[in-house]
Amino acid sequence: MDSVPAITFSTAAGLTPAVRVQAESTLLDAARVAGVEMDATCGGRGRCRSCRVKVLSGEISPPTLQDTLQLGHDEVKERFRLACQTHAMSDCTVTPMPPKAESGYQILAGQVDLASSAGLRLDCGVTKHVITAKSPVGEHHQTSDVEEILACLPPTVERRLPLELLRKVPGALRKQKGRLTVTTFNEEIVDIEVGDTSAHRYGMAFDIGTTSIVGTLMDLATGEQLAAVGGLNPQAQYGGDLMSRIAYAQFDEAKLATLRGKILSGINDFIKEACEKARISAAQIYKIVVVGNTCMHHVFLGIDVSYVGLAPYAPAIRDPLVYSAREIPLKAAPNAKVCLLPIVAGFVGADTMACVLATRIYESEEIRALVDIGTNGEVVMGSKGKLFACSAPAGPALEGAQIRHGMRGALGAIERVEIGADVACKVIGDAPAIGICGSGLIDACAKMLEASVIDANGLLRRESSAALAPALQRRILSGEGGRQFVLVWKEDAGRDHDISVTQADIRQLQLAKSAIYSGIIMLRDVMGVRDDEIHELMLCGGFGNYISIESSVKIRLLPELPIDRITYMGNAAAIGAQMALLSETERLRAFDLAQKIEHVALAARPEFQAIFVDGMNFSGESFAAQERRTRNAAPAPGAIAAGATVSAMPHAVVSAADRRYVAS
Amino acid sequence: MDSVPAITFSTAAGLTPAVRVQAESTLLDAARVAGVEMDATCGGRGRCRSCRVKVLSGEISPPTLQDTLQLGHDEVKERFRLACQTHAMSDCTVTPMPPKAESGYQILAGQVDLASSAGLRLDCGVTKHVITAKSPVGEHHQTSDVEEILACLPPTVERRLPLELLRKVPGALRKQKGRLTVTTFNEEIVDIEVGDTSAHRYGMAFDIGTTSIVGTLMDLATGEQLAAVGGLNPQAQYGGDLMSRIAYAQFDEAKLATLRGKILSGINDFIKEACEKARISAAQIYKIVVVGNTCMHHVFLGIDVSYVGLAPYAPAIRDPLVYSAREIPLKAAPNAKVCLLPIVAGFVGADTMACVLATRIYESEEIRALVDIGTNGEVVMGSKGKLFACSAPAGPALEGAQIRHGMRGALGAIERVEIGADVACKVIGDAPAIGICGSGLIDACAKMLEASVIDANGLLRRESSAALAPALQRRILSGEGGRQFVLVWKEDAGRDHDISVTQADIRQLQLAKSAIYSGIIMLRDVMGVRDDEIHELMLCGGFGNYISIESSVKIRLLPELPIDRITYMGNAAAIGAQMALLSETERLRAFDLAQKIEHVALAARPEFQAIFVDGMNFSGESFAAQERRTRNAAPAPGAIAAGATVSAMPHAVVSAADRRYVAS
Repeated sequence: MDSVPAITFSTAAGLTPAVRVQAESTLLDAARVAGVEMDATCGGRGRCRSCRVKVLSGEISPPTLQDTLQLGHDEVKERFRLACQTHAMSDCTVTPMPPKAESGYQILAGQVDLASSAGLRLDCGVTKHVITAKSPVGEHHQTSDVEEILACLPPTVERRLPLELLRKVPGALRKQKGRLTVTTFNEEIVDIEVGDTSAHRYGMAFDIGTTSIVGTLMDLATGEQLAAVGGLNPQAQYGGDLMSRIAYAQFDEAKLATLRGKILSGINDFIKEACEKARISAAQIYKIVVVGNTCMHHVFLGIDVSYVGLAPYAPAIRDPLVYSAREIPLKAAPNAKVCLLPIVAGFVGADTMACVLATRIYESEEIRALVDIGTNGEVVMGSKGKLFACSAPAGPALEGAQIRHGMRGALGAIERVEIGADVACKVIGDAPAIGICGSGLIDACAKMLEASVIDANGLLRRESSAALAPALQRRILSGEGGRQFVLVWKEDAGRDHDISVTQADIRQLQLAKSAIYSGIIMLRDVMGVRDDEIHELMLCGGFGNYISIESSVKIRLLPELPIDRITYMGNAAAIGAQMALLSETERLRAFDLAQKIEHVALAARPEFQAIFVDGMNFSGESFAAQERRTRNAAPAPGAIAAGATVSAMPHAVVSAADRRYVAS
Repeated sequence: MDSVPAITFSTAAGLTPAVRVQAESTLLDAARVAGVEMDATCGGRGRCRSCRVKVLSGEISPPTLQDTLQLGHDEVKERFRLACQTHAMSDCTVTPMPPKAESGYQILAGQVDLASSAGLRLDCGVTKHVITAKSPVGEHHQTSDVEEILACLPPTVERRLPLELLRKVPGALRKQKGRLTVTTFNEEIVDIEVGDTSAHRYGMAFDIGTTSIVGTLMDLATGEQLAAVGGLNPQAQYGGDLMSRIAYAQFDEAKLATLRGKILSGINDFIKEACEKARISAAQIYKIVVVGNTCMHHVFLGIDVSYVGLAPYAPAIRDPLVYSAREIPLKAAPNAKVCLLPIVAGFVGADTMACVLATRIYESEEIRALVDIGTNGEVVMGSKGKLFACSAPAGPALEGAQIRHGMRGALGAIERVEIGADVACKVIGDAPAIGICGSGLIDACAKMLEASVIDANGLLRRESSAALAPALQRRILSGEGGRQFVLVWKEDAGRDHDISVTQADIRQLQLAKSAIYSGIIMLRDVMGVRDDEIHELMLCGGFGNYISIESSVKIRLLPELPIDRITYMGNAAAIGAQMALLSETERLRAFDLAQKIEHVALAARPEFQAIFVDGMNFSGESFAAQERRTRNAAPAPGAIAAGATVSAMPHAVVSAADRRYVAS
């Protein structure tokens, strides 16, 4: 053992006796032999900084990628190292150092444990093969570098290498005496690295919404969430809602390229941000799962969306797709395979497919429904036996668009309303009110209905109505923009105008909520079940998780189920994407499900018109009916009679899926 | 039929009666119905200009790609059209025009008819499927554009589309009511075009030599050669011979990228040039076959060549490869699949494989040999039963390098020498002599040997030797550079120096020719056959086709076979590439052959040294032996005795394959 370097540790208690360990052992192993206490929170995989040391003297192995990522170039230069990554090359003196603050690793603690909570099988499809390949030697060789590498791999691995990898094979093979890690995704070689990098196998899941993008960096081996990133979709400047974005790029290749460039650079930035947070190398991201509605899916790939915006809103492709990041191109993660979940039909996109995966509705014994509320509301209903799906064109009212004081669910938005003798509002961030967001509008209308400020037809009561408390009477104003109900007086908001709900806002909400409601009812009717047979109604997506369930039932956005049957599911699309990332079983299940889900095209159903018109109404009686009950009066102007034709139905204009996502 | 447009022709004989034809019929069809004589040399495929017409009045279909390619934008604007490409959209008057001069089509006449001369099966692997796909219609669709297209294709076609094609699917599907041409290469979709483009299916074969590049554009349907292009390899500025080029790029990624950039831009330019010559669209080139020696093969793909230049000269990969042009990238032909023939071993590269295909040596009943003479000489020997191959490191002398007045085989190079009472030289282009090319040097030495100016050891006679005619005696000079033999006096060359062959030049030639000769002898010995059992020795490659067979045998560059057994095969590498282009049977045959050919590593054979030293000698006697015969003299200084060790053997220095190619 005398040729093996001796390692001495300099601790607070003084120098330890020198220890000698095998050449392949690390300084961490040596510390254990020497009885020096040293943490290895990550299990000695170079993934945390708990075993940080400084090498005071002696020769050590060159810094690994993990040394540099965890400690930074400066520390590495000053001979700081991760003990788990470092080998002594000559006699050394090493001193343990306090671990650095671990921004990357601490995020792990906050992870959602998908693997155990969703009962997920961890079979991401990405495998790392650590091999020692021979170099072709001798004059008589009739072989090549690639053949020597393939000889060390299972015979199921495909022979074909991406050109980018083939280019670096000769150098990689000869750098550490043939010690290589070959990474495969479903038997296809996606990376060749020098040395043993088997501890580093990462992936990302992206949910690309019209408004927001959510990305999650995960350890493919453990299912750990390493970093969460997200923000606004950088395309927003070219149209807040989906149809205006399609209109921007329609029949114009250059503008489509602009939209695509925005989303790609956004995703590239999110990848870099996540890798910096978690201190991992983006080159070791091998799988990226992307979900999004049909338009986002197509724009991300650069597919012409002209016809996605025109009836019958046909997608260019529904197949599940796998492209290399270089082909997309996603330059930030050059070795990744980018997987897109399949599209069911038209606007029932890959995001809905992800919700189906996340809710596991396909294995329910009872009938369940999932509803993703947004500019387009997707509804999936059914059970183990059969699933039906539709896309309901709600329009952008629920996102605050086309509402006089509408805004997104951000600081200053009214999100809840209480009406008693007077009105009280809850504002996001408890800030002065700036406007009303979608969930606030739903709540306001539900409470106005309860307080009899509006009736079942959505008609706003006259200001003079004696049926209202005086404070509420005062809040009903008639002006240039028609009748309105003031939620916050301008003095209280500190603004130059009152914040109110107008008669026109109520009409917009009626159109939007009826679309969602009608979608649910339509599927229920197609399945031939009663409301009480719907065992659970699951609200997916960021928006759905902010609305008041009681208020939503009150205004008939959701059908009148017992409240405890309606549940919040979080950002199911993002969770579904993560499941497909961690598990090929789940990703492949989506292929199968996409073919089995039956699409119900609402506009093509003759009965839809009647359902939609009925769905415009809120629950309860109209003022007219109330009056008729008391004194046989004529119908009030502005009320919509059941069965009437509504020409303002926004189907053709806003038949597009859209929603707000939040981090799950 | 009354709704069908009426077509009237205005000919020298006056207006014809109006004819009516089916909507899908062309003006060429109408002319035939009307009895108007109109040539269609290409068979109505838009490939020539013999059916040129001018449309005097009436509405016609938009110009096709072929209209524009054949007639140019200006003529198309003036309503000139190809009758075979044009449909009447309303009543028309059309006048036949004299065909334009046909630079593109005339090249066809000069074609090598590979299909019949080589008995080639035309199965290029590229298929055009003309389909009429439905667009997804109606609200109830649960389909997509791609699914509608796939439904019209054979089920064997792969579902996966390159992203570039997927991007344009929606637009293409809706342009001509679903009329599309889908092109596949071995069941993989490589192009989707609007309308029926089935007449246009092209490919290119490239032979990338160290010195020159030869490209051939071919019609994949007919095997016609449409254009030949070629020129110097633009990498030449980074080293004329192969080893200096490897040295340039060795362990330097940026310099490798420079070399690769040069070759790619060269090939891109050749593609454009060929398409302009033949007036076809480069987007309709679907297959490109590339052959070249191991170094050119690797550099073309951007593979690290560092170890190709170091013993044991292992290639990174020997497999036959297929990459998309976008991946390479070859931007000039974006839809092409680029196919590289396999490498046998080390320097027995894809070009040798192409020679094997072209000569069909693998099906010979008798033993044959093929020799590709260049900086590296590749030799393949054998028959139907078994083939052996080796690579002989000749060095650059045969290309004129390291020869005092050496030059390439270009204008002004001495290529043949006659010696009687005095010397007479034949110069390329019958121009004043500038220098000597390889074939000239071989011929000069053979004739000097015959005239007893040199002996079997390559020793140059003293100027005073009475055995020579006086004119020859005068041509032997001794100066600062050693002894030399003047071929052309400076006065005759119009230069400031004589053009001569030096003693050192002869030594260089001896090293070079012995390498080739030894390779042949080595394979002969490995196979255990006699010279007279070699049924045919086939000279492949540009250089081999310029040398004098008699002189090559005389100096023992080639073994002493009956002259009629040694044949010129033209640029067999280029022909082999063309065969693999036109026929997948041939391309796949190469896979099979590459695995069956046994590589003989010359330097690893202990007997090679002796063969090489013996091979240094020319045929006949040494002066010393002649003298011994007459008066028992001592061996002349400078002669190499059989069995001596030659330390100047250039194996390690110039172990690289190299040759000059000419158009086949």
